[in-house]
Amino acid sequence: MPSASPEIDRASQMVTPDTIYRQLPEGLSVRVRVPASSANLGPGFDCLGIALGIHDEIDVATTAGGITVDVTGEAATDVPLDANHLVVRAVLGGLAHAGFSVAGLHLSATNVIPHSRGLGSSAAAAVSGLAAASGLLAASGLADRLTADEMVQLSSEFEGHPDNAAASVLGSAVVTWTESSDGLNRYHARRLRVHPDICATVFVPETESSTAVTRGLLPDAVPRVDAVANLSRSALAVVALTSDPSCLLAATEDRLHQPYRAEAMRPTADLVAALRARGHAATVSGAGPSVLVLGSGPLPADARSLGVEFGFTPKSVEIAGGVEIA
Amino acid sequence: MPSASPEIDRASQMVTPDTIYRQLPEGLSVRVRVPASSANLGPGFDCLGIALGIHDEIDVATTAGGITVDVTGEAATDVPLDANHLVVRAVLGGLAHAGFSVAGLHLSATNVIPHSRGLGSSAAAAVSGLAAASGLLAASGLADRLTADEMVQLSSEFEGHPDNAAASVLGSAVVTWTESSDGLNRYHARRLRVHPDICATVFVPETESSTAVTRGLLPDAVPRVDAVANLSRSALAVVALTSDPSCLLAATEDRLHQPYRAEAMRPTADLVAALRARGHAATVSGAGPSVLVLGSGPLPADARSLGVEFGFTPKSVEIAGGVEIA
Repeated sequence: MPSASPEIDRASQMVTPDTIYRQLPEGLSVRVRVPASSANLGPGFDCLGIALGIHDEIDVATTAGGITVDVTGEAATDVPLDANHLVVRAVLGGLAHAGFSVAGLHLSATNVIPHSRGLGSSAAAAVSGLAAASGLLAASGLADRLTADEMVQLSSEFEGHPDNAAASVLGSAVVTWTESSDGLNRYHARRLRVHPDICATVFVPETESSTAVTRGLLPDAVPRVDAVANLSRSALAVVALTSDPSCLLAATEDRLHQPYRAEAMRPTADLVAALRARGHAATVSGAGPSVLVLGSGPLPADARSLGVEFGFTPKSVEIAGGVEIA
Repeated sequence: MPSASPEIDRASQMVTPDTIYRQLPEGLSVRVRVPASSANLGPGFDCLGIALGIHDEIDVATTAGGITVDVTGEAATDVPLDANHLVVRAVLGGLAHAGFSVAGLHLSATNVIPHSRGLGSSAAAAVSGLAAASGLLAASGLADRLTADEMVQLSSEFEGHPDNAAASVLGSAVVTWTESSDGLNRYHARRLRVHPDICATVFVPETESSTAVTRGLLPDAVPRVDAVANLSRSALAVVALTSDPSCLLAATEDRLHQPYRAEAMRPTADLVAALRARGHAATVSGAGPSVLVLGSGPLPADARSLGVEFGFTPKSVEIAGGVEIA
């Protein structure tokens, strides 16, 4: 029977109060595995992302009533254990997008992706919730899965930018872009076939960073010469990632965001500079403070040691595939 | 016998007065065929270029003394017929780079690439001269050909930016970038494998444009949101050109140079806007006033007619290979 769902109205900005939803039956369940991601890759502010082999896993089940959440792992004690949990909001948002609601929901989350480190944990959470919604819809037999385009769009709406979210949806590396009209943003992405030689290493510090704060450090206007420098590297990054890893160092140069944020995360900026001076294609991962290094082969031990000296934990990670719905 | 060459000293900034050059023998000759090019492709200001199947051809021969030039075709009466001719300067500059000079030189040029229309005629001239130098060096048996990297570097020095020059050297489409240090610019380029479905059409007007003038219209600072928009399109352009022509329209959006130059070339801006409104990936070709349209298939007749209505001559052109030395 169609029913109005106050849970959804509270949980998602995408839903208007007078929408009528069909209700999914209780007892449906789905497991989702979603990769971390690194955004920007140096020059590609808000438009380049890469999926990394650090995964969160969630189990979601429809119940007779209420929202229950249990979280283990990263930041388990820092997140709301109710309908305000980002994954729950994304599940309900994804269902609402398809015209469905639930009487109740149980979420069990195993978090591995570090939070507030520039590794796309919030984008991964949104993507995992939407993928769970997609899986529940399919399991019900009442609706089709959400398409990849829908998941990119809806998850990017949660984020406000598509680079992390699209990487977690599609996997591999992505180029994303945003079309804005009438106050609405349409988010788009294309998946790149990453050259098989490319290896990724992340350096994760103990300190956290807030994307909202670090975005505030960016000026409204930038020198044209800096913009032009980034344009060439952003285009070159696609070449480097797909066909010519030998130009990764040049392809990851940035003048548009890292310099402005350097003072706010000095160890990160120093590590990036030290690694680049040694010829390694290091960049701030997303809004930091983690550092991403891409190379055509594993990162040598001395470069890993350098990261440790700077207070970071190095971790070799696979370039990951996209979100998986079991 | 080694000899100092005042001709070269006058002709090229790359040569210092006290350099001693070996002299090539008279009687060597070479023929060179060089493609036109279109730069920027919308978002990729100074970093994206594509070689177009409109060719200039030159014959260059070493002589016993003096510089003689004859030119037929485009702008035959507008160019200096002496050592100041750009092609001659490039030949002598290319020879000097390898440590050689000549007693005399004859250049015969057949110009087909329209001048001052944004189709890279000056880059093509520099590239053809350097390629001729390369051919003369090889014909002499005294030195190797110039490498593609050397030709990109030397021709970009003539231009001050590498996008047109690298396209004419390497052919196909190119991503270029510039590394500056100690007041020196190192120009780099990577050739893209253009998707076989992609077709190019240029719309050439009767009016001319000066790159120097139109560069002066660009502001020193640009809104960050515009820079970020172009970053994504610049990266996407590589995807569109190589693997997914379906996103050419989105991939050719620009906010960093075309809007600032629109008033200076209103018919060009209007034609670009009219073609884009109909779904065709039109951009200002280089600094204009020609218009380039890229598509996954030939441009329909109604779009060509539209160009005629705006006062332009449409011309379907091949994506060209690089400069050829016969």
